[in-house]
Amino acid sequence: MANSKAESLHSFNIPAPVSASEADKHAPRPVLPGIRSAADVRGLSIPELEQLAHEVRRRIIEVIAKKGGHFGAPLGAVDLAVALLNQLDVPEDRVVWDVGHQAYAWKILTGRNDRFDTIRQYGGLSGFLKREESDCDPFGAGHASTSISAALGFALARDQQRQSHRVAAVIGDGAMTGGMAYEALNNAGLRKTRMMMILNDNELSISENVWVVHRMFRKAVTHPIYARFRKELVERIKKYSPDTFVDYAHRAEEAIKGLIVPGLFFEELGFRYIGPIDGHNMNSLVETLERTKDLDGPICLHVITQKGKGYKFAEDNPIKYHAAADMKIETGVMKKKSGPPAFTKVFGKTLVRIAETNDKVVGITAAMDSGTGLDVFCKAFPDRFYDVGIAEECAVTMAAAMAAEGIRPVCAIYSTFLQRAFDQVIHDACTQKLPVFFVMDRGGLVGADGPTHHGVFDLSYLRIIPNMVLMAPKDEQELQDMILTGVNYTDGPIAVRYPRGSGTGLNTDRDPVEVPIGKGETLRQGERVALIGIGKMVGVMREAAVILEDQLGHPVTVVNARFVKPLDTELLLNVAENHEFLFTAEDNVLAGGFGSAVNELFAEHDSVKRVTPFGIPDRFVDHGSPDQLLEELGLTATQIAESVRKAVARSD
Amino acid sequence: MANSKAESLHSFNIPAPVSASEADKHAPRPVLPGIRSAADVRGLSIPELEQLAHEVRRRIIEVIAKKGGHFGAPLGAVDLAVALLNQLDVPEDRVVWDVGHQAYAWKILTGRNDRFDTIRQYGGLSGFLKREESDCDPFGAGHASTSISAALGFALARDQQRQSHRVAAVIGDGAMTGGMAYEALNNAGLRKTRMMMILNDNELSISENVWVVHRMFRKAVTHPIYARFRKELVERIKKYSPDTFVDYAHRAEEAIKGLIVPGLFFEELGFRYIGPIDGHNMNSLVETLERTKDLDGPICLHVITQKGKGYKFAEDNPIKYHAAADMKIETGVMKKKSGPPAFTKVFGKTLVRIAETNDKVVGITAAMDSGTGLDVFCKAFPDRFYDVGIAEECAVTMAAAMAAEGIRPVCAIYSTFLQRAFDQVIHDACTQKLPVFFVMDRGGLVGADGPTHHGVFDLSYLRIIPNMVLMAPKDEQELQDMILTGVNYTDGPIAVRYPRGSGTGLNTDRDPVEVPIGKGETLRQGERVALIGIGKMVGVMREAAVILEDQLGHPVTVVNARFVKPLDTELLLNVAENHEFLFTAEDNVLAGGFGSAVNELFAEHDSVKRVTPFGIPDRFVDHGSPDQLLEELGLTATQIAESVRKAVARSD
Repeated sequence: MANSKAESLHSFNIPAPVSASEADKHAPRPVLPGIRSAADVRGLSIPELEQLAHEVRRRIIEVIAKKGGHFGAPLGAVDLAVALLNQLDVPEDRVVWDVGHQAYAWKILTGRNDRFDTIRQYGGLSGFLKREESDCDPFGAGHASTSISAALGFALARDQQRQSHRVAAVIGDGAMTGGMAYEALNNAGLRKTRMMMILNDNELSISENVWVVHRMFRKAVTHPIYARFRKELVERIKKYSPDTFVDYAHRAEEAIKGLIVPGLFFEELGFRYIGPIDGHNMNSLVETLERTKDLDGPICLHVITQKGKGYKFAEDNPIKYHAAADMKIETGVMKKKSGPPAFTKVFGKTLVRIAETNDKVVGITAAMDSGTGLDVFCKAFPDRFYDVGIAEECAVTMAAAMAAEGIRPVCAIYSTFLQRAFDQVIHDACTQKLPVFFVMDRGGLVGADGPTHHGVFDLSYLRIIPNMVLMAPKDEQELQDMILTGVNYTDGPIAVRYPRGSGTGLNTDRDPVEVPIGKGETLRQGERVALIGIGKMVGVMREAAVILEDQLGHPVTVVNARFVKPLDTELLLNVAENHEFLFTAEDNVLAGGFGSAVNELFAEHDSVKRVTPFGIPDRFVDHGSPDQLLEELGLTATQIAESVRKAVARSD
Repeated sequence: MANSKAESLHSFNIPAPVSASEADKHAPRPVLPGIRSAADVRGLSIPELEQLAHEVRRRIIEVIAKKGGHFGAPLGAVDLAVALLNQLDVPEDRVVWDVGHQAYAWKILTGRNDRFDTIRQYGGLSGFLKREESDCDPFGAGHASTSISAALGFALARDQQRQSHRVAAVIGDGAMTGGMAYEALNNAGLRKTRMMMILNDNELSISENVWVVHRMFRKAVTHPIYARFRKELVERIKKYSPDTFVDYAHRAEEAIKGLIVPGLFFEELGFRYIGPIDGHNMNSLVETLERTKDLDGPICLHVITQKGKGYKFAEDNPIKYHAAADMKIETGVMKKKSGPPAFTKVFGKTLVRIAETNDKVVGITAAMDSGTGLDVFCKAFPDRFYDVGIAEECAVTMAAAMAAEGIRPVCAIYSTFLQRAFDQVIHDACTQKLPVFFVMDRGGLVGADGPTHHGVFDLSYLRIIPNMVLMAPKDEQELQDMILTGVNYTDGPIAVRYPRGSGTGLNTDRDPVEVPIGKGETLRQGERVALIGIGKMVGVMREAAVILEDQLGHPVTVVNARFVKPLDTELLLNVAENHEFLFTAEDNVLAGGFGSAVNELFAEHDSVKRVTPFGIPDRFVDHGSPDQLLEELGLTATQIAESVRKAVARSD
């Protein structure tokens, strides 16, 4: 794998220096058009498989450059997907891909090539694997580190039902930082069931590599002296041994193997370790799979791949090309999105500003440094930044302990991933009332990543925990204010959630000011009808109010609740008293959400009023742009205005 | 540690064969009465420390035998607690105990001896460590596997603030099966910060040992040939080496160390491994701590202890004596609780019965086999039982995969511990609509274990997830019926939750019958007032109804909701229509709970009615008996009846 770059013959970014006719003459017959299902990959020769991988890469590059999506990881896993489909009997054999976004090649080769250009589009293919899409996807995944647990389940179910098919998990090295990967390794090692774990080691998780075992791998693998040492030592020990020494020498060899072979960690956990092998050498992949696919017991096959393989710009800058969108293939240049800065950026910038005058502030994330905007914090304060890897549980409990020592931990985790640390939020932060500041990017409907990534449960699952304070800003200025509020609040845990995407274009160079805890604001004073929004939906309510005023002929009240917990009791009861029709809007599930909280408040205070909540109904919402999804759910300003108008009309 | 049993000179179960006067003559002066705070342990000599440990053991045995509590683990950790307090500067040095119930000795020695006999009693000391109780408890814990993450947080906060105190985590081998322990090891290994992880290896987690690394430890440690082999090999290699071989020999020695020393797993993760040492040899404990407490970087100190140490019956049968209650010290006999069988037992028995005719049923738990009643299932169907250790995340995802294969996984996890797998329930079971059956024992207020263990969030956090079905039985017969219902339901995930403790004494030898999904029942038809209960609170509502009928002079309706999701829309709307006053009761938080769900339903169907919910307010509830706690919260039948009466009177 050391020379994998040198082998990168098929890089697509440089146009082939041949004339069309010459190219035609030498070009092998395309293989991909003949692949209708997984079975079609099985009979191919090595050169055909290589050609197929080449075509699949081209397809991925062409589609993703235009349509957008994950880029580096899927390119890195193309050869592996091809080899697996060649060697295994899919779908009879179960292959579980950890975080399906590495598996675009898998999609293309398992009957979904014709729809591949709909990927991540509304109504199109999912960006992850999905059981409903294909029988070749036995288990979907949008969150990392689940695949070994799932594969173990598949293997045990097979054993239970006396079946004999193979089971494999393909997991990236980044996902190995997640505790549940280890839980599953441990159990597979104990159960000794026949299954294969393929470590797709692309040297890099989403951002920095934070798996200590991996660093040791690297050290061992790349150190040339080890290979020589191992060989020589074994020979010398044998040469010099007296009779009784032979057995010792054998044991010594085994022991030394431990030092040199980078798989000791897996062997300790009960796996048989094989590798590392070059994940871009088709011959080696196919041969190794052939040799190992029917071995008994749990196997770890360590495959070294390169993110962005086959596309030079991505090979050279895998972090930048983690995902691509609106990209010119020849230059690798991605069109910058115009428009106001994203909430993510505003958070990062604001936190840096606050941290300049507060040296207690530290930033903590779980493999989401650029995703959360903490990357700028890391640059500004490298000693006050902690990326724990895909380890949300560790992040939260560690933050709680730091808070106990007077540090101000700002724990930035996407809404959907904080679900992983739900227990730690309750048990470590909230029961102990420790002032951790949870910053949840990607709250609400995230768009193209779909149901596994929508952050639509957070308002419900966080507001039920005692001692928690929960805010959501209406715009990026309020986000800034809430960041300051969160950092300065030391009475207990506090959380803010905000959506993926751009703000409204407000000036964010101002000095943030604290928001009083539990205080909302009336944005527009009207009569009869009150529209109460939280977070992003405040803007939608404002727009709805404008439409409604036209229709109803009188001003309509708009309230920005700001806090889901504690609610602004005074304001809300006052609004209840002075309006006939009350509505809330949230980009969160209706069940147990913000509207439900307001109704709980009214009931508690014996108000006879009730809000009618707009929000996400009780089903998983597929992928699509946030606007498409809001439309589908009846949550655009126009739709809400119409629903309100009807409700008012019904009653008049 | 091999002869630790032989060293058990101080076993308390056999009365000393000496006369009182003789005993007085030889008895050393008691040390414990002089220990007012942690500092008092620091100056003691080894014999004094041994004497102190002896007295602390006696104190634990005497108090717990009478008052009840964890037993085996606290006895095993006495010497370790004494040695730590002798060698560290507590509270300046931070010691985090994983799951505080092992730390009774710590409580006794850090200023809480005079209140130790109030442990786990209402208003008394907590059964776990608790920040509010003592500055020697820097971090509380009722759930396992958090201590290394917390210690890492303490160490990083110390480094951040340029302080120099020591940080230690004491973690049992059982807790090492939890993924977050590994996440923290990985991060500590990467950060290389100065901290000590003490592996309190008592050979046994709550039930069976399920840590593969541990088994390897054992193999290596207990094999006498290893020690001899290691010594001889090193000498021989040195003797036979030519000049150039010396370096190799050194490396070989290092490598061989890896084979023999059981700490390789920790070394791989970046820890320096020391041990194993005998956790009941005070001299060795103190000496090793002295030698290692100021070493740089992360250290793993491996201490072998024996559960129940010092109390012979518990040494011989650690599973039985995991906890004790109402025990005669001389005989080790615990008074059996009279009364009807616990829900736990009913579940186990019923599942076995169902599994006899359904060979797809498998039982899965996370180190709670006897706690959940799955132990009887394990005995009946050892090949269909999976205990994954303290690894709820793995358990749930594994179960989801098995469900995908047509297996009927029954995943039995306490309500409070299922919080650990919240994301897996959403991401792996619910988004994929896979029919995992979640069986949650310890729903509601659990009693003596207190706030970290109350299962009072489950109705709120599970009902917000699409595709989930959520039931709670009113009594043990209904539990049986719901077990059958859950096993037979294959449309998606389904959950049942029930309380800790005894049922109502109904016959459970009957054949269970399926409950129609989403159907409640009217238990008592009355007028004006409807009392709607869920789970355990149905019984309370029934009692309240009897009281109320007396006071109001007319019959009162009582409804058993059975389902929190889907709600019985028809029944509930009907009840709403035909009654003036509606009340719900649940042993769950009011926020987002059952009552809130009913009000959401009413709002959705434009009913003008609203229920007034009884439930747990927005604060953590301390420990105490469930009855004491219900009383404190105003949730007894008498209190509810009184509240209802007042509400009706106010309105009349």
